[in-house]
Amino acid sequence: MKAITILGSTGSIGTQTLDIVAHHPDKFRVVGLAAGRNIELLVQQIRQFEPEIVATSCPEKLPELQNETASLPNPPQIVAGAEGVVEVARYGDAESVVTGIVGCAGLLPTIAAIEAGKDIALANKETLIAGGPVVLPLVKKHGVKLLPADSEHSAIFQCLQGVPQGGLRKIILTASGGAFRDLPVEKLSTVTVKDALKHPNWSMGQKITIDSATLMNKGLEVIEAHFLFGLDYDRIEIVIHPQSIIHSLIELQDTSVLAQLGWPDMRLPLLYALSFPERIYTDWERLDLVKAGDLTFREPDHDKYPCMQLAYAAGQAGGLMPAVLNAANEQAVALFLAEQIQFLDIPRLIETTCDRAYNQNTQTPTLEDILNADNWARETVITASKELNQSGSLISLT
Amino acid sequence: MKAITILGSTGSIGTQTLDIVAHHPDKFRVVGLAAGRNIELLVQQIRQFEPEIVATSCPEKLPELQNETASLPNPPQIVAGAEGVVEVARYGDAESVVTGIVGCAGLLPTIAAIEAGKDIALANKETLIAGGPVVLPLVKKHGVKLLPADSEHSAIFQCLQGVPQGGLRKIILTASGGAFRDLPVEKLSTVTVKDALKHPNWSMGQKITIDSATLMNKGLEVIEAHFLFGLDYDRIEIVIHPQSIIHSLIELQDTSVLAQLGWPDMRLPLLYALSFPERIYTDWERLDLVKAGDLTFREPDHDKYPCMQLAYAAGQAGGLMPAVLNAANEQAVALFLAEQIQFLDIPRLIETTCDRAYNQNTQTPTLEDILNADNWARETVITASKELNQSGSLISLT
Repeated sequence: MKAITILGSTGSIGTQTLDIVAHHPDKFRVVGLAAGRNIELLVQQIRQFEPEIVATSCPEKLPELQNETASLPNPPQIVAGAEGVVEVARYGDAESVVTGIVGCAGLLPTIAAIEAGKDIALANKETLIAGGPVVLPLVKKHGVKLLPADSEHSAIFQCLQGVPQGGLRKIILTASGGAFRDLPVEKLSTVTVKDALKHPNWSMGQKITIDSATLMNKGLEVIEAHFLFGLDYDRIEIVIHPQSIIHSLIELQDTSVLAQLGWPDMRLPLLYALSFPERIYTDWERLDLVKAGDLTFREPDHDKYPCMQLAYAAGQAGGLMPAVLNAANEQAVALFLAEQIQFLDIPRLIETTCDRAYNQNTQTPTLEDILNADNWARETVITASKELNQSGSLISLT
Repeated sequence: MKAITILGSTGSIGTQTLDIVAHHPDKFRVVGLAAGRNIELLVQQIRQFEPEIVATSCPEKLPELQNETASLPNPPQIVAGAEGVVEVARYGDAESVVTGIVGCAGLLPTIAAIEAGKDIALANKETLIAGGPVVLPLVKKHGVKLLPADSEHSAIFQCLQGVPQGGLRKIILTASGGAFRDLPVEKLSTVTVKDALKHPNWSMGQKITIDSATLMNKGLEVIEAHFLFGLDYDRIEIVIHPQSIIHSLIELQDTSVLAQLGWPDMRLPLLYALSFPERIYTDWERLDLVKAGDLTFREPDHDKYPCMQLAYAAGQAGGLMPAVLNAANEQAVALFLAEQIQFLDIPRLIETTCDRAYNQNTQTPTLEDILNADNWARETVITASKELNQSGSLISLT
């Protein structure tokens, strides 16, 4: 029986994690839950899983949460605000903390969990992409495990089990190619938000679906893979694999290649992050290679996916640059989803923002530096987007 | 530096193993060599690798081998005959013995090596298919490792590293489909030896190429996988994968699927069997998924490949039946290669032979029982083939 805490319990990662817990009551027990403003769902989860401590990140929701849980047979301790989430993260005997909180808001509680000696089921990408320079030394210091809970990094992590130190030669991340993988590059300038939200394989949030269309999702995964697996960027590759059946691959020193395959289903990497190193029986649909059809591969087209190169450049620059890249991308995608910029403005705004940040970079940032860089990048994208919409050009900005 | 001995050093497995040793003189040292009648090549190998002991399995070749090696600066001890091969197998401080001897002749020296506490780089399929009931208890008793040196079982073995006890749910062996994979089943009755020897992917010996066309190679691998990995037959599947890039797959309890991929190259599984658990750097051609092209999969057609079902049946019957199946197949293929029977007579003769053997089966055979069953099956195939050619039918025989 493994004791776990879930940060972001009412989101996509959180609800899928609780679905796993519900199906394996003999394997997992919930110690803590942290959520935002969806108190109704949070209270349902409290009734079902009976955690010891619960946080809402919104202090104004504290009275409602207290009222709704006071009469329960085993009411949990209730806390609130960013400090409340941190308290849940480090609370009690939870062995693993699932970090399903989106954005840099996930950084502080993740660090608190690491400092409390808990393993991290890593679903918050900022933990490494933005926080890598701060988080990795803490992971090492406290001897905890970072267990990837997303499909691609889990695939690599699964393949790496049993590979001895020094045996890894290359990581190959597969990318579906997103909504525009079959669209000629010259047509990208006129695509709409609706076009971009049509993801061929995975059912995901809007932001991630756009990242999939720009391939920035893969660029960010390259950076995360660098931190997670300690490989140089020239040993991390991307290949377009439209069917999303092979979730990623590793090449070993002797040229042997290992891959992890499955139907596209976010639950499997979540389960493995929780059950590691065990393999728990599930009744999920089993992969059928014949039914899956032909597996195909293409080189990614750098003209079509400029975000990829921006990510490699930011990753190689290190320090604050991945944080800047990530925040600039989030802001640019938000503007695109709000129909304030064009699809091709996304890489333009990110590039401009990164270009402005390089000379302010530092290789040994503090957590405060990282949070500042995140804010700065968002503001810079907004400013640049306004100038772009006024002048139609970003040349004056770079 | 690992000390190894090679049985069958002048054959395909042996020469490829020595090629690996030659390229990694810092990793491997040759203790013993055993070969047959190719004394010229054997002497070359002795000069290059300076083993401590050498056997020719042919006693009449002993004087020649002695003459050719007597004047060497470090002449090896020379032995001959089946006992000589056994002596090489158990000699000295070799940690691993590569069993590249073909057929049941490989059984005695393999058993000798196991009893001497040496790990086995398993390239002799009879060791498990025929000898399984005798060999496996010895492997357990002496605490040695059976390291598969063929492509498919090595793929499974590689994928299984890091999978905990009980985590394996299914094995999926990939099959190229052989020379006739695109030929309609009704045309199989008229194919020639020349047609059957055109293997699409792997460059192999004639016997194995025919086994690939009948899919008996895969049927035999199913039996070997059963012994190697301890899975029931209903958890070992075959899928046709014409490109031979995915060398086999495993499904785990949580529905995750792991696969090993690479260009078709026999050296990789050999290297891993020797270097296990290490991954040694090689300059072999690296897999390029884009260049490899589409990966496709089909259900194997049981009407087209009756040998597959014969193998499952023999495997499930256990005892002596896999030995009978294997020997009957070898004899039937030899008759086909000698143009004494038709292609479709191969499964007919095997089925007839197996049908006659079932009521003589035992679940606890001795080594002598196994060698007798092997001989009996070969003779039965020859007898049956004569009756077939006289009467045009096997009905009277079954």
